[in-house]
Amino acid sequence: MTLAAPSLALKNAMREITAEMDRQFDALLPVPGDARADLYRAMRHAAIGGGKRLRPLLVFATSRLFGVDRQCAARVATAIECIHVYSLVHDDLPAMDNDDLRRGKPTVHKAFDEATAILAGDCLHALAFEILADEKTHSDPFVRVELIQCLALASGPSGMAGGQAMDLEAERASFDLATVTRLQAMKTGALIACSVESGAILGRVAPEGRTGLKGYARDIGLAFQIADDLLDIEGDEDKVGKALRKDGAAGKETFVSLLGVDRAREQARMLVDQAIAHLHAYGHEADLLRDLARYTLERDR
Amino acid sequence: MTLAAPSLALKNAMREITAEMDRQFDALLPVPGDARADLYRAMRHAAIGGGKRLRPLLVFATSRLFGVDRQCAARVATAIECIHVYSLVHDDLPAMDNDDLRRGKPTVHKAFDEATAILAGDCLHALAFEILADEKTHSDPFVRVELIQCLALASGPSGMAGGQAMDLEAERASFDLATVTRLQAMKTGALIACSVESGAILGRVAPEGRTGLKGYARDIGLAFQIADDLLDIEGDEDKVGKALRKDGAAGKETFVSLLGVDRAREQARMLVDQAIAHLHAYGHEADLLRDLARYTLERDR
Repeated sequence: MTLAAPSLALKNAMREITAEMDRQFDALLPVPGDARADLYRAMRHAAIGGGKRLRPLLVFATSRLFGVDRQCAARVATAIECIHVYSLVHDDLPAMDNDDLRRGKPTVHKAFDEATAILAGDCLHALAFEILADEKTHSDPFVRVELIQCLALASGPSGMAGGQAMDLEAERASFDLATVTRLQAMKTGALIACSVESGAILGRVAPEGRTGLKGYARDIGLAFQIADDLLDIEGDEDKVGKALRKDGAAGKETFVSLLGVDRAREQARMLVDQAIAHLHAYGHEADLLRDLARYTLERDR
Repeated sequence: MTLAAPSLALKNAMREITAEMDRQFDALLPVPGDARADLYRAMRHAAIGGGKRLRPLLVFATSRLFGVDRQCAARVATAIECIHVYSLVHDDLPAMDNDDLRRGKPTVHKAFDEATAILAGDCLHALAFEILADEKTHSDPFVRVELIQCLALASGPSGMAGGQAMDLEAERASFDLATVTRLQAMKTGALIACSVESGAILGRVAPEGRTGLKGYARDIGLAFQIADDLLDIEGDEDKVGKALRKDGAAGKETFVSLLGVDRAREQARMLVDQAIAHLHAYGHEADLLRDLARYTLERDR
C-alpha cells in the first residue's frame, strides 16, 4: 500500500464539509437577547470554526453511496457533531482532562466558566436529539427513531461516555491490549461507527446490508485512535492545537505504550487495508471512504 | 378551597410509583464487571431510593386518563426521570450549586468524584433517549419520535438547561417577576409539562386536544416552584434533605423575595385552583391529577 497526501477529492470534501458544519451551527445557535446569551456564545465557541469534522465527513461520504438528500445528511451530521463537541467540552473540564487549549483556542471553561461549560455541553447533547427527532431530518418517523437509537447507544454508557469512564480508570489500573482496544472502540469507535451507520440508515439499507460498512467503521475507528496515540508521542503541539504527551505522564497504557511505535504503526496500516477491503461491494462511489481510510495514517493534527 | 393532607389515593399512588421507579432503575443499571463499575454505581446512587418522583407520577396519572398500558407509561416515566436525575447530579457540582447533600444522601461528586458525576449525568442523559427510542416503549415509531421531541425540547437550551443557565445569571442580575416566571417555567416547568404531555402522547391525543392538560401542567409547575421557594425560607433542612436558604444568601430573586411570603402563598393557591379548572373536561379519572395539584401546597419536603 502506498501512502499519499489526502487526495484532491478528499481535500475538497473536507473543505466543503467544514464550511457546511459552520453554517449549520451558526443557524442552529443564534445568540438570544436574554440571560442565556453566554450559554449560546459558549456553544458557538465550542461548535464553530474548528475540528477535522471527521464524523460529519463519514455521514456525507456514506450517504452519498445511497443517493441520500444532502440536506438530510447535513442535519444528521450536525446532530452527531453536537454529541462529539459536547463530549470534548466535558472532557476538557478541570475534573476530567483539565485542558486549557482545544483546536488552538481556549477551552470553553477557560473562555467562559466551568458552570457554563457543563451546561453548554448538556445543551448540545439535548440539541442532537432535538435535531434528529424533527421531521425536517427525514419524513419517515421510523428512520428518525432508528437514527436516534443509534446515536443514543453510541454516546451512552455502552459507547462514548462508558469508554470515557474506562479511560478515567486507566490512570489507576494497568490495562492490557484487549482492554485498551475495547476502551477505544467505545470511547471513539462507537460514534465513528454511528456516523457511518447513520448514512446507511438514511439510505434505507436494512441492518443485514450494513455488515461491510460496519466493518469499515470499526477498522478506521481503531486506526484513527492508533494514529492519535502516535500523534500524542510524535506530534507538534502548535500544529495539533492541544496539549500532547499527557497519556504517558498520566501512566495510561495506549496502543503505542503496549505495542511500541513500529508495531503500532504497522497495526494501523493493516487496519486501513482491512477497512478498504470491507468496501469491496462498492465501486467508485466509495472512493471518498477509501481516501478517508488512508488519510487516518497521514494526519499531522 | 380547603387544603387537606395528601389523599389516600395520592399517598398510595406515590408509594407505588416510587417503588416502581426504583425497580425500573435497578433493572436498567446492573453494575458491569469491568472498569465502568463506578460509573454505574454512581448512576444507581443518583437514581435509586429517593425523591418525590413527581414527574413519573404525572406521566402515570395522565396516562391513566387514556387507558395507556402501564408498562409503556413506566418506561416513559423512567426516561423523564433520567433527565431530571442527570440535571440534579450536574446542578449539585462544585462549579454549579456546590451541594454536598441531596435527598439526605451525599451528592454524587461527594460519594464518588467530580469526573464520575459529570459522566454519570451524561450517561443518564443518553439513556433517556435510548429508552424512548426502543420499540418496547411503544410499537408506533411516530409515538416514540414525538416523545423524544417533547423531551429533547423540554430539557435543552429552550427548556430545563436554558433555565438553569438563566439561574446562573440570577446571582449577577436582578430579575423582575416576569423574568423569574420565565426562568422557572423553563428550569422546572418544561420537564413537568413534558411529563403531562407524554401521557397524552402515549394516549394518542392530538396536539389540539392537549390544551387543558398543558394549562394544568403550566400552573402546577409554577405552583410547585413557589412552594419550593417557600420551603427554602420556611423548611426544615433535616426533613427536606438538602441545604436551604441558599437563594437569599446568593442574592437571587425568587417568587418569595419579589412577592413576599403571603402574596406568594396566595399566588400558589390561585394557580392550583386554576390548574384544577383546566381539568374540567375530565371526570373522576382525573382525580389523581387534582389531588396532586392540591398536594403542591402541602409539601414539607
